[in-house]
Amino acid sequence: MKKTPLPILPLPILPQPDLPGLTAAMQGRDASGQPVALPVVTEKPLTIFLNSQEIITAMSLGDYPESLALGFLANQNILTDASQVAAVDVDAELGVIVVRTHQETDFEARTARKIRTSGCAQGTVFADIMDRFETASLPGGVPVSGAELTRLSKAVHTAPSLYLSAGAIHGCVLANKDKPLIYMEDIGRHNAVDKIAGLMLMQQIDGADKLLYTTGRLTSEMVIKTVLMGIPILVSRSGFTEAGVELARQSGLTLVGRARGSRFIVLAGEQRIRFDAPPDAAADTGSSAQRRLSGRG
Amino acid sequence: MKKTPLPILPLPILPQPDLPGLTAAMQGRDASGQPVALPVVTEKPLTIFLNSQEIITAMSLGDYPESLALGFLANQNILTDASQVAAVDVDAELGVIVVRTHQETDFEARTARKIRTSGCAQGTVFADIMDRFETASLPGGVPVSGAELTRLSKAVHTAPSLYLSAGAIHGCVLANKDKPLIYMEDIGRHNAVDKIAGLMLMQQIDGADKLLYTTGRLTSEMVIKTVLMGIPILVSRSGFTEAGVELARQSGLTLVGRARGSRFIVLAGEQRIRFDAPPDAAADTGSSAQRRLSGRG
Repeated sequence: MKKTPLPILPLPILPQPDLPGLTAAMQGRDASGQPVALPVVTEKPLTIFLNSQEIITAMSLGDYPESLALGFLANQNILTDASQVAAVDVDAELGVIVVRTHQETDFEARTARKIRTSGCAQGTVFADIMDRFETASLPGGVPVSGAELTRLSKAVHTAPSLYLSAGAIHGCVLANKDKPLIYMEDIGRHNAVDKIAGLMLMQQIDGADKLLYTTGRLTSEMVIKTVLMGIPILVSRSGFTEAGVELARQSGLTLVGRARGSRFIVLAGEQRIRFDAPPDAAADTGSSAQRRLSGRG
Repeated sequence: MKKTPLPILPLPILPQPDLPGLTAAMQGRDASGQPVALPVVTEKPLTIFLNSQEIITAMSLGDYPESLALGFLANQNILTDASQVAAVDVDAELGVIVVRTHQETDFEARTARKIRTSGCAQGTVFADIMDRFETASLPGGVPVSGAELTRLSKAVHTAPSLYLSAGAIHGCVLANKDKPLIYMEDIGRHNAVDKIAGLMLMQQIDGADKLLYTTGRLTSEMVIKTVLMGIPILVSRSGFTEAGVELARQSGLTLVGRARGSRFIVLAGEQRIRFDAPPDAAADTGSSAQRRLSGRG
């Protein structure tokens, strides 16, 4: 059982794909029936408690459990300030993490009432998140150029990572222009971004002058989390959903998708982008053959 | 408000990417600042009720809402038989679907008790799913050859689809060897597979002689759903997680990953695969450059 206070980690925090426990060597066969061995990423259940209330069981890579738990609670609008947290207790063997607060949270008071009257309180939680989303005010931010986005993308995809060594994993990066500051990987992109949110909360890192880069699609969930984290620019190598674009436009978030090589598409908040690519290099043909090569996001 | 009885749809059921409402045209800018317009997939909340109990709000593409609701409930082990269902009422405008059963389900009786005593019943639901998973017995199935997998993959990725026209979407296909029978797309691969499960339940389609193909990663969630659907073979163009492989081995599921062109890797249940590729063509080098080209899953 590990106890708080949690250590402050120096930035940048980058993947450590060789740490024990993150991958397992598995034996199988290839298409000709020949034996092969390959590294496969681990996936473990982690049940998050807030004081005595069970909140969720997440399937996760298993690293940075404190950051995942705190970031999940922050991005659900359940925790709003690190000073609320009295202790974080992890039992890695049982896959249980307990976040203890100095006082009962509003969330616990409200959901206890809601659960008594009408079952699970998921709808209430979602309404709370949207209330905070709708009143959130994003900072002006620091404009980013296409050249900086290209360098960031290259830095992320060439850094040692589980993505390079084992694949089948999502990555999420808090960056200062083209400099990765926190690069988290996980089975689900929501976990990777929650781990960043937890570190930002614990280490009091301000999102105002940063951007968030993700390998996953730009869905409503990713846009809401980014806005709640106070980060004004969200960039992905993958594509958009309509709700993601609409929420980004509503909140003033800069939304950049299909960022590959020197190409990208901006569908919201273009005032924070410095367009510095010549017209030819920038065209996203959007052809199916091109998308097929680059995979689904 | 649409009411049951639901129509029986003839197979194959393939994507209809030109149906209104599945994509929206959005305006933006490319990396040189030039205006571009591109189709973006829709993403809408759908709140599923079982009788009077709210179960979940899923963000979904929005097509086949009845199949999504019934398949979700089946894959959560809440519904086990189509004969339990009395009616399915959809209010597309409100994004609400109500599945009505002839009698109160075991799930409602148990969760009502659980919620009264100790909060949300998510842990109970997960334990129920694992109970059913652990006692599930997969059929012997029909062996599939590498050449058939290659033809299936080609058929899926060249069929007209939202993936080809807009991207940023997952696909899931119930197939008979190399013939797609039901091809569903959705924002999340869990929704795509739940829509297939719902159609299988409603149209009494047996999974025993079929296989399931997905564009997403082979996680524990995908393996559990496939086993609960009674399908003995799960194939993906993407990679594996350790828990996915272990659960597949435990349940006797055949698990094929990294299926691209004529290459693939089998990590469980190899007795259902006919290895017909010559050794050279089959090698998966697993190089980072190759994975980078093919995208993350």
